[in-house]
Amino acid sequence: MIDFSLSDDLLELRDRVRAFVRDEVIPLERDPRQDAHGPSPELVSELQSRAAARGLLSPHVAPEYGGLGLDHRGRAVVFEEAGYSPLGSLALNVSAPDEGNAHLLEHVATEAQKERWLRPHAAGELRTCFAMTEPPPGAGSDPTLLRTTAVPDGDGWRIDGVKKWITGPVGAGVCIVMARTSPEGAERVEATMFLVPMDAPGIHVEEQLSTLDSQFVGGHARMRFDGVRVGADQVLGAFGEGFRYAQVRLAPARLTHCMRHLGGARRCHDIAAAYVRERTAFGRPLAKYEGVGFQLADNEMELRTCRLLVWHTAWLLDQGAEAGEASSQAKVVVSEAVWRIADRSVQLLGGLGVSDETVVARIFKDIRPFRIYDGPSEVHRWSLGRRIARRGGPVET
Amino acid sequence: MIDFSLSDDLLELRDRVRAFVRDEVIPLERDPRQDAHGPSPELVSELQSRAAARGLLSPHVAPEYGGLGLDHRGRAVVFEEAGYSPLGSLALNVSAPDEGNAHLLEHVATEAQKERWLRPHAAGELRTCFAMTEPPPGAGSDPTLLRTTAVPDGDGWRIDGVKKWITGPVGAGVCIVMARTSPEGAERVEATMFLVPMDAPGIHVEEQLSTLDSQFVGGHARMRFDGVRVGADQVLGAFGEGFRYAQVRLAPARLTHCMRHLGGARRCHDIAAAYVRERTAFGRPLAKYEGVGFQLADNEMELRTCRLLVWHTAWLLDQGAEAGEASSQAKVVVSEAVWRIADRSVQLLGGLGVSDETVVARIFKDIRPFRIYDGPSEVHRWSLGRRIARRGGPVET
Amino acid sequence: MIDFSLSDDLLELRDRVRAFVRDEVIPLERDPRQDAHGPSPELVSELQSRAAARGLLSPHVAPEYGGLGLDHRGRAVVFEEAGYSPLGSLALNVSAPDEGNAHLLEHVATEAQKERWLRPHAAGELRTCFAMTEPPPGAGSDPTLLRTTAVPDGDGWRIDGVKKWITGPVGAGVCIVMARTSPEGAERVEATMFLVPMDAPGIHVEEQLSTLDSQFVGGHARMRFDGVRVGADQVLGAFGEGFRYAQVRLAPARLTHCMRHLGGARRCHDIAAAYVRERTAFGRPLAKYEGVGFQLADNEMELRTCRLLVWHTAWLLDQGAEAGEASSQAKVVVSEAVWRIADRSVQLLGGLGVSDETVVARIFKDIRPFRIYDGPSEVHRWSLGRRIARRGGPVET
Amino acid sequence: MIDFSLSDDLLELRDRVRAFVRDEVIPLERDPRQDAHGPSPELVSELQSRAAARGLLSPHVAPEYGGLGLDHRGRAVVFEEAGYSPLGSLALNVSAPDEGNAHLLEHVATEAQKERWLRPHAAGELRTCFAMTEPPPGAGSDPTLLRTTAVPDGDGWRIDGVKKWITGPVGAGVCIVMARTSPEGAERVEATMFLVPMDAPGIHVEEQLSTLDSQFVGGHARMRFDGVRVGADQVLGAFGEGFRYAQVRLAPARLTHCMRHLGGARRCHDIAAAYVRERTAFGRPLAKYEGVGFQLADNEMELRTCRLLVWHTAWLLDQGAEAGEASSQAKVVVSEAVWRIADRSVQLLGGLGVSDETVVARIFKDIRPFRIYDGPSEVHRWSLGRRIARRGGPVET
Repeated sequence: MIDFSLSDDLLELRDRVRAFVRDEVIPLERDPRQDAHGPSPELVSELQSRAAARGLLSPHVAPEYGGLGLDHRGRAVVFEEAGYSPLGSLALNVSAPDEGNAHLLEHVATEAQKERWLRPHAAGELRTCFAMTEPPPGAGSDPTLLRTTAVPDGDGWRIDGVKKWITGPVGAGVCIVMARTSPEGAERVEATMFLVPMDAPGIHVEEQLSTLDSQFVGGHARMRFDGVRVGADQVLGAFGEGFRYAQVRLAPARLTHCMRHLGGARRCHDIAAAYVRERTAFGRPLAKYEGVGFQLADNEMELRTCRLLVWHTAWLLDQGAEAGEASSQAKVVVSEAVWRIADRSVQLLGGLGVSDETVVARIFKDIRPFRIYDGPSEVHRWSLGRRIARRGGPVET
Repeated sequence: MIDFSLSDDLLELRDRVRAFVRDEVIPLERDPRQDAHGPSPELVSELQSRAAARGLLSPHVAPEYGGLGLDHRGRAVVFEEAGYSPLGSLALNVSAPDEGNAHLLEHVATEAQKERWLRPHAAGELRTCFAMTEPPPGAGSDPTLLRTTAVPDGDGWRIDGVKKWITGPVGAGVCIVMARTSPEGAERVEATMFLVPMDAPGIHVEEQLSTLDSQFVGGHARMRFDGVRVGADQVLGAFGEGFRYAQVRLAPARLTHCMRHLGGARRCHDIAAAYVRERTAFGRPLAKYEGVGFQLADNEMELRTCRLLVWHTAWLLDQGAEAGEASSQAKVVVSEAVWRIADRSVQLLGGLGVSDETVVARIFKDIRPFRIYDGPSEVHRWSLGRRIARRGGPVET
Repeated sequence: MIDFSLSDDLLELRDRVRAFVRDEVIPLERDPRQDAHGPSPELVSELQSRAAARGLLSPHVAPEYGGLGLDHRGRAVVFEEAGYSPLGSLALNVSAPDEGNAHLLEHVATEAQKERWLRPHAAGELRTCFAMTEPPPGAGSDPTLLRTTAVPDGDGWRIDGVKKWITGPVGAGVCIVMARTSPEGAERVEATMFLVPMDAPGIHVEEQLSTLDSQFVGGHARMRFDGVRVGADQVLGAFGEGFRYAQVRLAPARLTHCMRHLGGARRCHDIAAAYVRERTAFGRPLAKYEGVGFQLADNEMELRTCRLLVWHTAWLLDQGAEAGEASSQAKVVVSEAVWRIADRSVQLLGGLGVSDETVVARIFKDIRPFRIYDGPSEVHRWSLGRRIARRGGPVET
Repeated sequence: MIDFSLSDDLLELRDRVRAFVRDEVIPLERDPRQDAHGPSPELVSELQSRAAARGLLSPHVAPEYGGLGLDHRGRAVVFEEAGYSPLGSLALNVSAPDEGNAHLLEHVATEAQKERWLRPHAAGELRTCFAMTEPPPGAGSDPTLLRTTAVPDGDGWRIDGVKKWITGPVGAGVCIVMARTSPEGAERVEATMFLVPMDAPGIHVEEQLSTLDSQFVGGHARMRFDGVRVGADQVLGAFGEGFRYAQVRLAPARLTHCMRHLGGARRCHDIAAAYVRERTAFGRPLAKYEGVGFQLADNEMELRTCRLLVWHTAWLLDQGAEAGEASSQAKVVVSEAVWRIADRSVQLLGGLGVSDETVVARIFKDIRPFRIYDGPSEVHRWSLGRRIARRGGPVET
């Protein structure tokens, strides 16, 4: 029956993560080992060592591979806490794209692949990236446009193609590459995922992109695969299952983005609220002005509704539901709401809000792309609308 | 632990209510026994008899007084179904102001009062009204402005005053009257609630107000209390507890408004969605146009977030939480969201949406006042903002 | 060079209209000769007699036919004043559909037709209606779906078909009927407009529609043309020009809707502003609360931007520009802004706003359909977007 | 009478500025002589030399001091063109704060001051800054909190205090300093403006602030005035007129921000529109999708309404009107609309929009602070609301 309580274990874990972020992560936010492309691998290592020392590393990974085995609801609670700092998700090893990759490996990789890649990743020894998106006219919102190919070559395959908007390849140890494995002109496009070590010959990170956000280690890049050879043991899971696996990764991955950004939005709100309680104008604290108080109220209403939506979707996933529609809705609602929260927080802080004197402007820039990454709002609304159009009868409740 | 499932009993009840609304209530929506001030008492009696025959009358009332004893979460589910038709809440006897009055009686009335008023009310034999709001400069958003007085008179009191925006007095059997019982000029205003039969000498319904909404039986009215005499057994619960009782009634009452209107909004959406699936323009069903599909998607996202917010608040109430802030947030978010849903549904229906050919325009007019009734959005945002201003530290999660 | 001043003549006329509306129209707003389908013909006659007595009748019609010959800018100023009361446009004879019909007659009718229909109409002796829209699957947003036909019959034509959403036929003297005059299955659909006296055999007003708005005399209706015979002198202007004439009528007609509703929105704002200056809560006038003051400020900003957009579009029309895109933009922006203004005004008035104690709720209901009538916002945005998609290069300024 | 045409001279000038921006300014947008604090003085010199060569430098300054003598309407047209590139305003010498300072000097400086500062500034030989805002608890939205003082010292004054958010001091030749010249504890605070060469002993630029925007040469800084001595000839205009002069500068200065940002927003839209015309998804150009086309349409509607509002306010200023309320409205509406336009343009560009591959992300970051600079929207709405509250009677038209 409807219940919103958290188990004692989860509450305890949440509080430990909260204390960790407050005591060890936030003090490093101005660490100089960061630039426009994100924190350096060294800074991330330091953060992850600290998390490991507190037993907080990789909470989403199964215990047999070194994690805490959180289900989706547990992740919702913990990832929100981690996201309270732009460095928190990296510290816990639950940042994109690693977190989604770990989820995918756990569900579809062979035992040998898990041992080779998942276990060290969960221990903070190895980062991963995920190479699916391509520059136009390749795979984007429409994945069947996939142009990177893996063609048979001896006892393995040869991968050729260009990828763009790939997050975190610089410094990563392994890349999951999505490639077309159906022949040119085949009626039905078939794709396969491959596990490729980043030092394999023929992998080139051609260009690092400068973007509004700076929360991902290794930034975003353009990659070229130039005759990269892979063997049968590098097929992730089963051959030809690339598109299905992308779905396995997708719904939870976009939901964990929501969890993390929700924490970031809460941080913005807390900083803005503390400021307007202190700062006065015309003899009154700013917080006493309705034009300010209404924005604070809207922030808290949206934080709450976002959290409920995330929890509900996480619960659906925990029930084994496909949850594609539910996570698509959550992505749209949360990505737009956290953006409004961050924007209001900037506004409440006035000049301070657009400067780097607080972390708010940084989170503001980190959040904006989320309305685009993992499918722009327009694509989700289009897809949700199509489902409703096809569906007969009243809305299901 | 977080759980969004419904018990089997509740699911079964929900489905029975849904079937009842579909089969017996909706067919009566165009019944001529209705006017601008709502359905007639005769129509309501017929509806309630039908509900009683199916065992669905007064589901919110405790079994010992003839109801089904639903908790707040159960009400959330059932009242949403009832609200699917403008006549559904009346049919189940869960319409405002009766539902809130029954809740109040159950919690604070004496046993004798419950026997006299609650039991027949739960059986559909008696309607009730609640007289608190007064015309300016009397009690409104600021309840301490209360001007209606109850002054000692023999072994009882004499009530004098004017009330406005009183819902449903025409045809009601009893009125709960809020009156000031502290002397003129006392430092602290004290109020008491009295149970007054509507046929008591000195009660006058002076004027029925014409408003956008027409869902309440007996409409809204201006009442005058002209030396109405009451005895000690007519003090609802305890003397001097009027303001506290108003709070007991308030948080759940505004939440049940959310439940019912959520059902109304869902109805609007279902009608609009069915229409755009059928109707074509330039050779395509309207639903295939993004300008239409996006609105459908927004409707479903908002229906879902509203429902989660209502369930969460209901759960808080079921835990015995005060929930004033939570229900205030729910009231703001839901009242504004259901209005947008109704508005989009009108828009999707085009000319049909602004005509009375569907029930949508009627629900649209019923929903608009909810952004004002039970505290305008601005008063809630002001109050929520004040709480945040006073509160130290980060937002609680 | 850019200039926003009004000529002395226009200022004088504006002030006279303003005084007329204040002194003679507003006092009749509660006249009982009105119902859900609008004011009665008798009430309109009285209003028009009063306007005529002040020399204010039909200001848009050319002087040679009895009007004041205002250009589009002059209409913008005068119609806004007229729209300040729901009865003002009818009083000045500038209400839809008459005003658009007069414009059309003046531009395309033969001299004989103008003498027969335009002159008495301008004198307030005759009302007109315009029958183009049809029930599905007929002509709506897509006019080429036209199903009403005029087929040759002796020395004239015979008109058969059904029209819906026709404004004002009850009590009208003449109807402009749009009918298909190309044969069944012709490659290109051709249409012709006919002038048909409302007492012609075969014209039936089948049903009056109940809608949110009640500002049009004669309401909206469903009409049937059942073998209505017309002669060559009843072809409005030239044969086969129906679609072109519809465009001649369209751009100015939707702009004059903007003008009138702008006046209505201003009225709502004035009433709300006066109320919040008087009414107090917690010891301060409501207007001193930011949650109120911000809404007042938004109202005035939107009133101003709407007016500028209307004036600019009117100026374009006065320059002889086609102005289809400009008037489409104005229609979208103004219809949505006046709706927000009316909605805020309702909100500021609280319970009063949703009751009929002020005229605001009435204007609120009159304004809502404007987002649908004359093309829903979605159809305009779709059409504007298509133009931009087709256009090369930067936006023109 | 209402007229929206531009004079031939102005059209010709507009087209020359447009060509200059296209041919000489935009190609320099990726010039490396820029960083987070804006373009370097060298880059600005190069840009201004090019503008001077085309006779386009300082078009707002009176001809007798070397400019083109544009009135406010002329500025509206020309500054929008300049703002089409983040470097365009600097190139024409019409960027903030210089442009406002030149306006102020022209209106209140002595002839000798104009010769010394205005003439070389207009020739591009000297930049200026304006030091009014102070860190809390000093002068901000409430200017009477002014804490920087100028106290009599020999035949002149000694200035002491701290200023913050001062735009462009690095590299400037002169600073207009606002200081309190009433004694401590005086009933009425009096302020005076002084012209201080930036190389005067005691002026310190303590810190350059990192902000979202990077369009101002010299960035924003914190300044300290440490016993800076000034003589009588350095009093700008008249002694004790500081607050009045601030108003003289204010209304036009915030309007010129609107003009420039309007150009920036138009640029964003043009880039996004060109992209969606080219880029395809699922076999169609993006521009053909309604979810895209609607955003394009909204952009153009908002560009148009902003332009009209700017023109109208400029016309009021040209008539000699005080225009404080009008420019305050324009500031709110335009700052919020250009932000939406920039945001939609980012969205339409997808990943490209959040990267630095186009200039859109840069303009997006430049525009956000405008909702805060020159008075946050909330302060303007508060002030506009107060005016309405005080005003009796209906809205003036």
